[in-house]
Amino acid sequence: MLLEDLLFKPENSLVVQSMHSRLGAEAVNGDGFGVGWYDAQDRPGIYSSTEPAWNDRNLRELAGHARADRVFAHIRATTGTPVQQTNCHPFRHGHWLWMHNGSIAEFPTVKRDLTVAVDPALFPHIEGSTDSELFFHLALTFGLEEDPPAAVARAVGLIEETGRRHGVEHPIQMTVAVTDGETTWAFRYSSMGASRSLFHSTDISTLRAQYPDHPLLHGLSDDTRVVVSEPLGDLHGAWREVPESTCLVVHGGHEELRDFAPALVPA
Amino acid sequence: MLLEDLLFKPENSLVVQSMHSRLGAEAVNGDGFGVGWYDAQDRPGIYSSTEPAWNDRNLRELAGHARADRVFAHIRATTGTPVQQTNCHPFRHGHWLWMHNGSIAEFPTVKRDLTVAVDPALFPHIEGSTDSELFFHLALTFGLEEDPPAAVARAVGLIEETGRRHGVEHPIQMTVAVTDGETTWAFRYSSMGASRSLFHSTDISTLRAQYPDHPLLHGLSDDTRVVVSEPLGDLHGAWREVPESTCLVVHGGHEELRDFAPALVPA
Amino acid sequence: MLLEDLLFKPENSLVVQSMHSRLGAEAVNGDGFGVGWYDAQDRPGIYSSTEPAWNDRNLRELAGHARADRVFAHIRATTGTPVQQTNCHPFRHGHWLWMHNGSIAEFPTVKRDLTVAVDPALFPHIEGSTDSELFFHLALTFGLEEDPPAAVARAVGLIEETGRRHGVEHPIQMTVAVTDGETTWAFRYSSMGASRSLFHSTDISTLRAQYPDHPLLHGLSDDTRVVVSEPLGDLHGAWREVPESTCLVVHGGHEELRDFAPALVPA
Amino acid sequence: MLLEDLLFKPENSLVVQSMHSRLGAEAVNGDGFGVGWYDAQDRPGIYSSTEPAWNDRNLRELAGHARADRVFAHIRATTGTPVQQTNCHPFRHGHWLWMHNGSIAEFPTVKRDLTVAVDPALFPHIEGSTDSELFFHLALTFGLEEDPPAAVARAVGLIEETGRRHGVEHPIQMTVAVTDGETTWAFRYSSMGASRSLFHSTDISTLRAQYPDHPLLHGLSDDTRVVVSEPLGDLHGAWREVPESTCLVVHGGHEELRDFAPALVPA
Repeated sequence: MLLEDLLFKPENSLVVQSMHSRLGAEAVNGDGFGVGWYDAQDRPGIYSSTEPAWNDRNLRELAGHARADRVFAHIRATTGTPVQQTNCHPFRHGHWLWMHNGSIAEFPTVKRDLTVAVDPALFPHIEGSTDSELFFHLALTFGLEEDPPAAVARAVGLIEETGRRHGVEHPIQMTVAVTDGETTWAFRYSSMGASRSLFHSTDISTLRAQYPDHPLLHGLSDDTRVVVSEPLGDLHGAWREVPESTCLVVHGGHEELRDFAPALVPA
Repeated sequence: MLLEDLLFKPENSLVVQSMHSRLGAEAVNGDGFGVGWYDAQDRPGIYSSTEPAWNDRNLRELAGHARADRVFAHIRATTGTPVQQTNCHPFRHGHWLWMHNGSIAEFPTVKRDLTVAVDPALFPHIEGSTDSELFFHLALTFGLEEDPPAAVARAVGLIEETGRRHGVEHPIQMTVAVTDGETTWAFRYSSMGASRSLFHSTDISTLRAQYPDHPLLHGLSDDTRVVVSEPLGDLHGAWREVPESTCLVVHGGHEELRDFAPALVPA
Repeated sequence: MLLEDLLFKPENSLVVQSMHSRLGAEAVNGDGFGVGWYDAQDRPGIYSSTEPAWNDRNLRELAGHARADRVFAHIRATTGTPVQQTNCHPFRHGHWLWMHNGSIAEFPTVKRDLTVAVDPALFPHIEGSTDSELFFHLALTFGLEEDPPAAVARAVGLIEETGRRHGVEHPIQMTVAVTDGETTWAFRYSSMGASRSLFHSTDISTLRAQYPDHPLLHGLSDDTRVVVSEPLGDLHGAWREVPESTCLVVHGGHEELRDFAPALVPA
Repeated sequence: MLLEDLLFKPENSLVVQSMHSRLGAEAVNGDGFGVGWYDAQDRPGIYSSTEPAWNDRNLRELAGHARADRVFAHIRATTGTPVQQTNCHPFRHGHWLWMHNGSIAEFPTVKRDLTVAVDPALFPHIEGSTDSELFFHLALTFGLEEDPPAAVARAVGLIEETGRRHGVEHPIQMTVAVTDGETTWAFRYSSMGASRSLFHSTDISTLRAQYPDHPLLHGLSDDTRVVVSEPLGDLHGAWREVPESTCLVVHGGHEELRDFAPALVPA
């Protein structure tokens, strides 16, 4: 699909949400944005900017020309770290992409301990200063490329243990999406049990039968799946909320929900 | 005063308004901003940027160091023209500053006629592409530096006549503030008689007697006057609305309200 | 071809030239850049930025993913107009792209007269403030879409006549490239007869026979043609200079050189 | 003095050098810039940007309005780290400013070890990703605020020891300037004994006697001192080179040269 079908055309598209989010922790997500896309090249492309998405002329151009099988897109409302391109999601490692909505609580307090826990071979790849990119590198350290749910569980376990050691009550708030370009894993979890919103689309063919005239549904193949923090429109029955403490796995036209819990990190 | 006393410290400061305006036509004014300030130099300084004001590190630094007798500040929500520094208010001509909240309706339709009406000697000074900067140069063409209310009345008259000739029902919506560094003229007018909001502060000494402990009132001299699109806080009795079709003139510690109406432009 | 084959891989690529031009009027062309590319979509895409090309992370990403049949790319050293995206080349009108290396002399003096000469229907499409974009709209006014060499000749004629009326000795300095996506016209002309440099590549198949191991030549089809201000490398015999006062027409695998002279504009 | 007297008026001013450095490792220093200035406020102000200094409109405005007793200014040519505001010099800690010309060799290789050596209480204050900011925080860790030459010597000692442990032949190349707003310390050192250039101005009163008509010398008080990587003009006798392995201390109208050598860090 063309990126614009996803980023600009839906009534509550991500670009619309950047100025007026309905469900987000912040109504305005104007502190930069990023989009990663998989096409015929080995590595996904990334376009990111510190401008608000609603103003970016290049994004509109790119979205009208780039075609992709899989797209990651993120709008940012900073929780304190600088507004700079190296802090824009998605983050990339090889052909993997990662994005995170939420935060590691009291990040300045726990940042050093978490930084030291990153595999020294991965350390030089950290370019920015966010909690989200560091979280990604912790997951990579714990084997993200082999077993994503297990690696994320260990990273979250370490973040919670480190936070609690520093007296932080609720160390993490997160939805996370990560992909190798074939499978996507989306996590919804928070230490306080009240996580940011996460939705996935229902089966497109069922939906198309229900709304034969809806333009957005026409261009999509039957195995298309959309995972979002906030629905892209008000189409009744189109979206299902991902439950708390859950990992959603999407591959081909199939999705699977698994329980998710942080893993204890062996001392 | 330090710029930060005006731009950052009030509870509903301009920087706060840039993300959450209460009275503005748009809730988010994130399409750049500008500040002009008069100090000991001949010409006012201007700092402007296309970033949202809430994110600008340099603005915070400048505001913590620059002292001024008179400050103009503006946050922008574009009505269609590009987000670029040359489109940021305030606009400057010699020691004059101008800023405009509102728009010239169907600007692409009337822009050429209005452009041609600008004094050819002033034409090369137009740097950007907004209705607001062109409006400023029309007012300069009509004698802004000699008689501001008369010049603005003629500029508005021309804009309305030009718009109506092109079939535009309500050609202009405006609050405008203009100063030579000594006197400030603020206009509230719209062709449809429902103009954007405009307020001015009441007498500081009265207010200080009423709220002896309010920190913001301490640093201000008795002849300070503040003119805003939206009050900077909820201090009861601190703000008076400027009526429709009115020009407010502020000089020294005095303010005066005059009726304002567009002037017919001789054919 | 991938954009990076043109923009990044050659030894003296455009990105290299942005920091160290050998033949340009300025050694540093760091005042923004732009690239336009034709792919399967109706309209060419444009990516432009006010940053120096050598620093732009998004350009590198885009260039590694976007494939195109025809590419226009430009690096800018401003001759006085602001560094902003609307002043970056190439400029677009429908499916046409235009870029200009050089300047209209004493532009502030002649800008108003030239602006008024633009077709009023085209006037609202002028977004920036450069001489180059105005020149494009003059050429459009004079029929660029029907007969490019004739339209450019009339636009240059008007610019020269206008300049001379204002006492400008050498009103224009230019190389210009314009395309409809199928044919490219490149002009080399200046009022003083000492125009900026312009080169075109020789026949790729001949060159490939001569340098069977050169990597850049491998990916190119036989009808590829490259037109540049400055050769992309030191391959002997690869580049021919376009003579003064000449229009080069490239279509398919063929190129043609025609004399070019400004046309008198009827009073 | 007004910042513009230093940044814009000299014939080979820093802004001129940003496009055409004569002595720098790179001719073009267009990867951002920064200026720090001390005025009546407690903390110095910082204005920085990722744009080339030659293009920045706000810098020109600020420089025409901000007055300061002491100014630090830096133009950047990145040695690999991203072009972002948090990587612009000068860096600030409390009322201290630091800037560095040069690099820590093979920084990705040694970065982790050096990062871990930073005082954990200082670690959260590192905002960017450069070798220069990390070097500053190492010097702070080793007591910069108490004894700058000793602290810099220990930081350099650690950098050299760490580099050599990782097989780096020449671990550091540097000129560094650091100030508390009263005294300035400038260091010239490199592991290979061929350091970047560093100059200081000679006594202004002597110079003024020699060139009674030179405009730049008029506005300067007798105790003014200028320390630069590259002279600001060709005034014969105005500049003295700081020798290799030297620390220059400037306080009031006096300067002192001391030998500088890295200190061994106790294991």
